[in-house]
Amino acid sequence: MIAKDKDSGARLGCIATPHGKIATPAFMPVGTQATVKAMTREELREVKSQIILANTYHLYIRPGHELIGRMGGLHGFMGWDGPILTDSGGFQVFSLGDLCRIREEGVTFQSHLDGSRHFISPEVSIAIQEALGSDIMMCFDECPPSTADYGYVKKSMEMTTRWAARCMKARRRDDQALFGIVQGGRFDELRKESARQLRDLGFDGYALGGLSVGEEKAVMFGVMETCAPVLPEDRPRYVMGIGTPEDLIEAVYRGFDMFDCVMPTRNARNGMLFTSGGTLNIKNARYAEDRSPLDPECDCYVCRNYSRAYLRHLYRAGEILASRFNTYHNLHYYLSLMEQAREAIAEGRFSSFRRDFFERRS
Amino acid sequence: MIAKDKDSGARLGCIATPHGKIATPAFMPVGTQATVKAMTREELREVKSQIILANTYHLYIRPGHELIGRMGGLHGFMGWDGPILTDSGGFQVFSLGDLCRIREEGVTFQSHLDGSRHFISPEVSIAIQEALGSDIMMCFDECPPSTADYGYVKKSMEMTTRWAARCMKARRRDDQALFGIVQGGRFDELRKESARQLRDLGFDGYALGGLSVGEEKAVMFGVMETCAPVLPEDRPRYVMGIGTPEDLIEAVYRGFDMFDCVMPTRNARNGMLFTSGGTLNIKNARYAEDRSPLDPECDCYVCRNYSRAYLRHLYRAGEILASRFNTYHNLHYYLSLMEQAREAIAEGRFSSFRRDFFERRS
Repeated sequence: MIAKDKDSGARLGCIATPHGKIATPAFMPVGTQATVKAMTREELREVKSQIILANTYHLYIRPGHELIGRMGGLHGFMGWDGPILTDSGGFQVFSLGDLCRIREEGVTFQSHLDGSRHFISPEVSIAIQEALGSDIMMCFDECPPSTADYGYVKKSMEMTTRWAARCMKARRRDDQALFGIVQGGRFDELRKESARQLRDLGFDGYALGGLSVGEEKAVMFGVMETCAPVLPEDRPRYVMGIGTPEDLIEAVYRGFDMFDCVMPTRNARNGMLFTSGGTLNIKNARYAEDRSPLDPECDCYVCRNYSRAYLRHLYRAGEILASRFNTYHNLHYYLSLMEQAREAIAEGRFSSFRRDFFERRS
Repeated sequence: MIAKDKDSGARLGCIATPHGKIATPAFMPVGTQATVKAMTREELREVKSQIILANTYHLYIRPGHELIGRMGGLHGFMGWDGPILTDSGGFQVFSLGDLCRIREEGVTFQSHLDGSRHFISPEVSIAIQEALGSDIMMCFDECPPSTADYGYVKKSMEMTTRWAARCMKARRRDDQALFGIVQGGRFDELRKESARQLRDLGFDGYALGGLSVGEEKAVMFGVMETCAPVLPEDRPRYVMGIGTPEDLIEAVYRGFDMFDCVMPTRNARNGMLFTSGGTLNIKNARYAEDRSPLDPECDCYVCRNYSRAYLRHLYRAGEILASRFNTYHNLHYYLSLMEQAREAIAEGRFSSFRRDFFERRS
């Protein structure tokens, strides 16, 4: 931690990894299948990606972590030489895998691609992530559905802690960091207990899991406020799977440092674009002859060179270039927003930055 | 025409347009909907595209030539400042349009997108192409099916000549070139007559239409051999819609200068790649752990940076990056091949270049 905002929980930090440093708060573009959809690594650098996220479940299923391991790990395979974070596979096993069966030992499930049967345990997840060779690994956790009751969530959270201890013990490499994942659903008491237990185990960083799964925003921000004070100040804090630009600013305000979400990339492919004035749907007929850039305040390659009219045409024609340009712009927006947040924290004006940010969109 | 090969019909040439010069023989990447699929203009420049082709029919249907005209023409709309050739719309009207009805006056048809009724005549085609603002326009022609008999093809060819004269008369702008299109199917006598009639009308360049529509290669090369001697030496000769790398070399050998084809771009998206050793299907399991580049003799961005194993993974995972990388490589291959052909002609060694080219793939 380099600096802390005097009026809020916002922190300026730096994470050192074998593949470079990450200034936080940081947004991590999602590269599910060893590629951030529609982007080359050069373009990822242009929009100032510091670290990308890859999905363990997807890469385990195809092309297989052992193949990737033989091809030089994820860095060698996909040709990205910056930091990479891999999730544990847990979330996708529960959301994509079929016939999922959860026991203390681990989880059996069927591949969503070919129905083949698989087993992932904390030890297996770490072995996969070590083969992938990410800079930051995540503990294998259970993500109970948002509708689960207190009793279920409590038992699940306690098992996630035991799994976290097993992940720690299963590590064979010392060049990869390992983050614990706080669970506990919407229950403050369980979230606090989970955070305490993981803190006592002592991880390189801490994440909030099981958020952005349908709960109200107030619950999500409440969980952040509950957990932040329990987690060590000198370790990165990561909220998994969020969110909108507004969510990110609110999470930074509450003391969180790292984020990942498919929203900028997936929404881009659906024509939904983030701008300084809010979101914009490029399909809209009003843009048919609009010569202005997507976001007049944006200095990205797309906004410097192309009109809304051309972007609308590309989208309506189903052209790959639409996905490319929209993804490029949206990632640039998210990553610039985090850069601005870092500058604001460094200059002791994060609260006014946050206020201005929300005023401009109201 | 700058130089002529002593042993064959191959010619080195230069075409001057308001948006720059084109060294011939030249391949024109196809940008059907005002974008060469998956490529930015910067990447088109990197792979040394000198001119691109856009499809009048598609742009007339969506977003409409009048809109494009108001947005600064195709150059302004898509942000490409190099030369552009537009086809006449004829071929697509016949191949994509529904309920096509052909009369001397012009053609009525229904849009393949929404079934709306349209009419294109020689005059309408020129007006559309003038709104698009291409550097080279093509005459509106009828493309009879490859199965049409002599009587039909003769009448059709004669109408195409009358249409060509009408196109010439319909021009309002003097900054766009106009090429005539030789028709006549597989009948040498009709092809020769068509070429003569168009030559007598006096166009800026001449194209062979109605090839690569299912006829045998011998017929295609025969038509080239029939027409080349009839066409003026000092004007560009364009074979529309071909072809494989082998077709291009054979057409250059027979005195043709310009080519366009969706093969490098469309096949790229289907995983079929052109290399110095012939074609390669990246889906093939043999490439699963192949660390070598697509084409060890290629110096393109993709071959310099990525393995066949990664490209195979991207393709199998259905990633946009697969289409991007494969398209980039295939266009680089086609455009480099034409560059090598130009060098060979300039250095008086085209025949040995052609021999080597075919020997390496046998």
